[in-house]
Amino acid sequence: MKKWVYLFKEGNASMRELLGGKGANLAEMTNLGLPIPQGFTITTEACMDYFSYHNKIRGEILDQTYKALSIVEKSQNKKFGDITNPLLVSVRSGARASMPGMMDTILNLGLNDDSVLGLSKQSNNERFAYDSYRRFIQMFSDVVMGLDKSKFETVLSKMKKSKGYTYDYELEVEDLKEVVATYKKFYLDNIGKEFPQDPKEQLVLAIEAVFKSWNNDRAIYYRHLNDIPSDWGTAVNIQSMVFGNMGETSGTGVAFTRNPSTGAKELYGEYLINAQGEDVVAGIRNPNHISKLKEDLPACYEEFQRIAQILENHYHDVQDVEFTIENGKLYFLQTRTGKRTAQAAIEIACQMVDEGMITKEEALLRIEAKSLDQVLHSKFDEEALEKSKAIGKGLPASPGAACGKVYFTAQDAKEAVANRKEKVILVRSETSPEDIEGMHIAEGTLTCHGGMTSHAAVVARGMGKACVSGCSLCEIDEENKVMYFGSIEIHEGDYISLNGSTGYIYLGQIKTTPATIDGNLKRVLAWTDSYKRLSVRTNADTISDAQTAKDFGAEGIGLCRSEHMFFSKNRILEIRKMILARNDTERKKALKKLEEFQFEDYKGLYKIMKELPVTIRLLDPPLHEFLPKGEELVLLAEQMNRDVEEIEQQCDQLSEFNPMMGHRGCRLCVTFPDIARMQARAIIRAAFTASKELRIPIQSEIMVPLIDDAKELNFIKNILIEEIENMFNTYGERLVYSIGTMIETPRAAVLADEIAKEAEFFSFGTNDLTQMTFGLSRDDASKFLNAYYENSIYENDPFAKLDQHGVGKLISMAASAGKKVRKNIHMGICGEHGGEPSSIEFVNGLGLDYVSCSPYRVPIAKLAAAQAEIKRKMK
Amino acid sequence: MKKWVYLFKEGNASMRELLGGKGANLAEMTNLGLPIPQGFTITTEACMDYFSYHNKIRGEILDQTYKALSIVEKSQNKKFGDITNPLLVSVRSGARASMPGMMDTILNLGLNDDSVLGLSKQSNNERFAYDSYRRFIQMFSDVVMGLDKSKFETVLSKMKKSKGYTYDYELEVEDLKEVVATYKKFYLDNIGKEFPQDPKEQLVLAIEAVFKSWNNDRAIYYRHLNDIPSDWGTAVNIQSMVFGNMGETSGTGVAFTRNPSTGAKELYGEYLINAQGEDVVAGIRNPNHISKLKEDLPACYEEFQRIAQILENHYHDVQDVEFTIENGKLYFLQTRTGKRTAQAAIEIACQMVDEGMITKEEALLRIEAKSLDQVLHSKFDEEALEKSKAIGKGLPASPGAACGKVYFTAQDAKEAVANRKEKVILVRSETSPEDIEGMHIAEGTLTCHGGMTSHAAVVARGMGKACVSGCSLCEIDEENKVMYFGSIEIHEGDYISLNGSTGYIYLGQIKTTPATIDGNLKRVLAWTDSYKRLSVRTNADTISDAQTAKDFGAEGIGLCRSEHMFFSKNRILEIRKMILARNDTERKKALKKLEEFQFEDYKGLYKIMKELPVTIRLLDPPLHEFLPKGEELVLLAEQMNRDVEEIEQQCDQLSEFNPMMGHRGCRLCVTFPDIARMQARAIIRAAFTASKELRIPIQSEIMVPLIDDAKELNFIKNILIEEIENMFNTYGERLVYSIGTMIETPRAAVLADEIAKEAEFFSFGTNDLTQMTFGLSRDDASKFLNAYYENSIYENDPFAKLDQHGVGKLISMAASAGKKVRKNIHMGICGEHGGEPSSIEFVNGLGLDYVSCSPYRVPIAKLAAAQAEIKRKMK
Repeated sequence: MKKWVYLFKEGNASMRELLGGKGANLAEMTNLGLPIPQGFTITTEACMDYFSYHNKIRGEILDQTYKALSIVEKSQNKKFGDITNPLLVSVRSGARASMPGMMDTILNLGLNDDSVLGLSKQSNNERFAYDSYRRFIQMFSDVVMGLDKSKFETVLSKMKKSKGYTYDYELEVEDLKEVVATYKKFYLDNIGKEFPQDPKEQLVLAIEAVFKSWNNDRAIYYRHLNDIPSDWGTAVNIQSMVFGNMGETSGTGVAFTRNPSTGAKELYGEYLINAQGEDVVAGIRNPNHISKLKEDLPACYEEFQRIAQILENHYHDVQDVEFTIENGKLYFLQTRTGKRTAQAAIEIACQMVDEGMITKEEALLRIEAKSLDQVLHSKFDEEALEKSKAIGKGLPASPGAACGKVYFTAQDAKEAVANRKEKVILVRSETSPEDIEGMHIAEGTLTCHGGMTSHAAVVARGMGKACVSGCSLCEIDEENKVMYFGSIEIHEGDYISLNGSTGYIYLGQIKTTPATIDGNLKRVLAWTDSYKRLSVRTNADTISDAQTAKDFGAEGIGLCRSEHMFFSKNRILEIRKMILARNDTERKKALKKLEEFQFEDYKGLYKIMKELPVTIRLLDPPLHEFLPKGEELVLLAEQMNRDVEEIEQQCDQLSEFNPMMGHRGCRLCVTFPDIARMQARAIIRAAFTASKELRIPIQSEIMVPLIDDAKELNFIKNILIEEIENMFNTYGERLVYSIGTMIETPRAAVLADEIAKEAEFFSFGTNDLTQMTFGLSRDDASKFLNAYYENSIYENDPFAKLDQHGVGKLISMAASAGKKVRKNIHMGICGEHGGEPSSIEFVNGLGLDYVSCSPYRVPIAKLAAAQAEIKRKMK
Repeated sequence: MKKWVYLFKEGNASMRELLGGKGANLAEMTNLGLPIPQGFTITTEACMDYFSYHNKIRGEILDQTYKALSIVEKSQNKKFGDITNPLLVSVRSGARASMPGMMDTILNLGLNDDSVLGLSKQSNNERFAYDSYRRFIQMFSDVVMGLDKSKFETVLSKMKKSKGYTYDYELEVEDLKEVVATYKKFYLDNIGKEFPQDPKEQLVLAIEAVFKSWNNDRAIYYRHLNDIPSDWGTAVNIQSMVFGNMGETSGTGVAFTRNPSTGAKELYGEYLINAQGEDVVAGIRNPNHISKLKEDLPACYEEFQRIAQILENHYHDVQDVEFTIENGKLYFLQTRTGKRTAQAAIEIACQMVDEGMITKEEALLRIEAKSLDQVLHSKFDEEALEKSKAIGKGLPASPGAACGKVYFTAQDAKEAVANRKEKVILVRSETSPEDIEGMHIAEGTLTCHGGMTSHAAVVARGMGKACVSGCSLCEIDEENKVMYFGSIEIHEGDYISLNGSTGYIYLGQIKTTPATIDGNLKRVLAWTDSYKRLSVRTNADTISDAQTAKDFGAEGIGLCRSEHMFFSKNRILEIRKMILARNDTERKKALKKLEEFQFEDYKGLYKIMKELPVTIRLLDPPLHEFLPKGEELVLLAEQMNRDVEEIEQQCDQLSEFNPMMGHRGCRLCVTFPDIARMQARAIIRAAFTASKELRIPIQSEIMVPLIDDAKELNFIKNILIEEIENMFNTYGERLVYSIGTMIETPRAAVLADEIAKEAEFFSFGTNDLTQMTFGLSRDDASKFLNAYYENSIYENDPFAKLDQHGVGKLISMAASAGKKVRKNIHMGICGEHGGEPSSIEFVNGLGLDYVSCSPYRVPIAKLAAAQAEIKRKMK
């Protein structure tokens, strides 16, 4: 027969999968000889068995439960439900991963009309006994039977009011007896049965309630947020009760062994005298800081400090503990790794390395890579924030705090910044590439439509600018320059503040503090370089992006989207002239100007990156993305001295049904080779110039996007090489350069062996590859992906986290095929996933050479790359 | 040393790859002992060597050429360039595949100021000698040196005019000598060198000219049209001259051994007395029908008949021959398989089977599957067509002849048909799903935009309706109901005629004749059933489609696009009500009505197909495709008694950036499971009803589109099964049904093993799979794919011909992965490629079970499937 139930002394910390985190740690502490109220754990497997056994607990599980219970009875020398010396227990959930607040707890189980008398005798405290009984009925009715908790609160309030009391502890024994009677009647009226008097019946119902709570809405939501698989299940911990509500030498509390907010090495926590578990959280009385325990119960405090140190030394990490003091004796009810802010994680990791408690590898693994986001963006001043009230909430699309005057068009925002030096927030229904300059000069962007991977979100993350997207509550009346949050009107020029890390929007100004890389963060990032195998480059299109990324430790540019340079005011006109040219002469003239712009841009990037590699991608988006609409189109016709209708017609001809799969990427090189030639000239000239100015050799990497076929790449390569060789002849000297390709269509992935014959490097464009592999448009997916999460079809947004199963299979095939043909082929990824830790671990496992991500994700990527390689070696 | 040159007697018919078609057949005829002027062939390899050797002929090739020439000199007892007894030769190209008119020919090579005297003496005909010389100078200057032919014609015309002659043959010796002198002067003036007098120099220049002509524009274009690889190259045939211009017992002609237009068993061709090769084609004199040779030169005619029979018996096929008669002696200059119309191909194949000349397998392989298109659609009456002049040309998007009154909207066209019983041609800038009903009732459709695979083209082919698409010359002024072809105005109600097989558009009415399947076509199609392994189903959405396909031999429905039934007037309103429903009640009410429509539709299909399988695909397109725009939207709001703005807003919310990758396919089942439930009910009810009425068991196949993941399919399957089991309970009986999926995203292809666990059948949706594998939108690709053909990056439109290399690799992977998991999984394709012969051969090779194509392609697919399997077994 399978073992479904483990006494605490039968388990240990390594059995987390089976016993859950709480159960495994209770076992571990038991074996360390720490003061733990004894009990046992019903395994997570029993939970999953419950679901597959038609929501019934199998007989053998109950048998083992009762057997364990009798062992605990003996050890405690008490009896479950006994009228003289009753054993009471708590029943608590405990999943493999810590899911705070997600699961349900029942205390004082075993009390009934008989055993309450026993408890009274045993404790010599009748008031305590009835207080425990009324708490139990209330909790059981709520958690197990689903009765509305507030109804019980009302009974209690009425009682206090009628007696003129303020606090619960003022209730007398007779009052409490009356409360118990009222509660039981309420139970009978609403459930149709008497409150269960059989402790075993209570126990079974409670176990079932814990099992069921694994699939309650809060739990499902939390699992989705935290990528916890739904088939892990929860264990059930049944532990004999100790009581913090037995008087002035009793109490209960929670504490961290170090400060989880700042990382400072100090006990951090709260407790209440004469209270049971939930009182601390419920906020009925204000709890005391843990340091005050030194005055209240000095021996307990000393014992607490001693055991906290034992726990840290044992677990080599900060512990988050729950404790109860019963008549002056300290018990530990739970220990677990303390959750902490990113800042605290960094501080604690460094402290522990300095204390010799952990290695640098361990320290690196202790800091959640994703959480670095919190320390890399400007933040609202905490005090100022507490005084502000949010007026709405959107998606936390790009972290950081931003505050400025509202403008509804990129043009208006630009003018406000240029002419009046204002700080601005750009507010748009949704953004398009034309808004990029506006987003760049703005402090932050707010959009009404679009998800976490909408244009606004992606661009803002790339820029490291705060962005709140998809705030559907917000309505914009662009014509009258006003927006509405319900009844709140916000006019152009009014101040708002955005928190891109939480999605909250505030009226007015909130003070912000900027991010820097120094102190222990700098130290941790330096460590990553010794452990990671992947190099971490950045996606950067502008000089300021490149500088930020370099300051953050980027090891080159993996993706410079040359088109992003075209959106500034004077440049967009030239690219429009180029697109709308009626003949070669007009086109050549416009290209000549664009070449100068590009030359300056590339030179700037080379000069920042110096010896580090710079990969420049040829023009990628469909040309119609550069063209204006409405009034701007009329203006353009004027500027170009052309007929509006003619321009309109040209624009119409360029519009597409599915632009993502349209006339873009390398297809532009095939149809307009002059654009590619222009870009090649600008790249090489810039490299020559920068190389001379810096007196170092500069290597250009030219990347061709959206390749589908080796012949296609060969055709474009020939054009580029011809142009470049012409330049070498003109200059009378050569430069080292390489030509590679993005692998971003499934066809390119499938034919990577052939393409590798032409390409010196592969950069997997995981955004487009995900779109095309799924047949899923990033801009449209948010409308229906929620239904996929709700129905557990997908666990994650494949644009946020690389779909290792499907898209990853194509990448893996392509990477090995490419390597087979060209042994030293250089490979990396440059999609949004390049800064996402699980995706980085995946490509590290495939043996790719680099990832490229937006500047503000560089530190995250470096840490994730180090973690990936450390974990790989541990395997 | 490699052998680059073969004497005719050294080769044979099987050496076509090396010697080209012409060379191989000249060799074969030589070995058959037929009267062939002797000569030799320079190989196709020499041609490709020329291009890779920097456009130079390698020395060893010239050496072998001269050696072969000296052997020919000896056998003919003549000498190249000799003053007394000169050998003259023709130089002609000859590729592996017949490329009529694509390559260039030079006759009488070897003539110069000396050898012309020799020819004169030899022939005892000075006039003939100088006529030959002037012809040679003219042809050499044109073909080899690129001088303008018309300039030479002018010289000749002037001479005739000054002498008062009408025909060339009236020119006297002295006239011709003067012409030669003028030609040579013109050559010197324009080339800057004397006309080459060295025959070897003439020969080398001529050989180079043939090589170069492999890459002239006409040749490249022809290769593209006919899928001939560019690396085959052409051979060069050098053959001693015989002369048809030596007087009244000489002549030249071309003939087929059977009628290539009708297939009748009769000699078919033309000849001219006293003429050289090009005169027949040039049309200077009207040639005689071959039957007249019986009167002119009876012995030659008899000999011709005898040899024609030898050739047919030898080659087992109709031959297309060139011949020359020199002083009463018949020579054959070339034989090749005669090109023929589809009708002739069918007739000839059947005749030859009846004559015991070929097997049925051979007969099936003789008929080009694609060409059946010609006999399956209505055609213009040939006589009437000859009298008509085209006013424009678009793409031949869907074959057939159509004639009717022009209407510019589907609505106007429908009213003209319904109220006035008119025949109409629908003319649209481009069509959308709303135009489907209009296209259906129209005789044909003309669009200004969109390629061979645009919406209009695909839908029209599916309906078997004529369509000319992408006629960019045509401008539509919809408001004023008029269109322009340049200066020609065509108003609503004017007659036009379209030829969907050629793309030509005519003003006015042209008589048409309808298509039928009978006679030898019926016989040939019956043969296919014994040889093919694939079953051929049809894509059919309506009862009339299904009936047509069944008449054409379809073995079931492989794809019923259930949404196509929604576009008729009363149905579209209901689906719009369903989409725009504000609550469940409204939606359920609309679904109820739709269910009745669908029930009737499916019942109709089942009753036509009887025991044959019917696969119904669940709703596929994004919902916004069903919604109206502009005025129609206002109308809809009225019909629904709703606010226009509200409806507009709902429509806006449904619009997408990339609808092809948006909220469609099975994603609709996940978000609106009620639609899937409704469809399941309609399918099962229809099957029950039809089964009862016909007293046969009916098997429903339900197909889920756009699946990306096994979990997704499982989720939808559970919904369908639940609904179906409910119906079985209601009916108190069961039906056999199966649930399968389309494999049309690369992710589904890559994860086919997992999906096969859930799917009972796979239908590869090659249209979407091609779009997503390439990242190429079918609706937008026509704008740039031409540049890909011109630059030889792609040889074919991947939407017309399956991309076996890339998309095919995914299909192949998916098919074997699927089979590994589910041994008896049923697999087929249902994209446009299902009716395309090379794609059918490919999937036959992969071992799939069926193809499904539009009704009018069923016969093509059946023939192609038989050919594929015959060829596979031959390997």
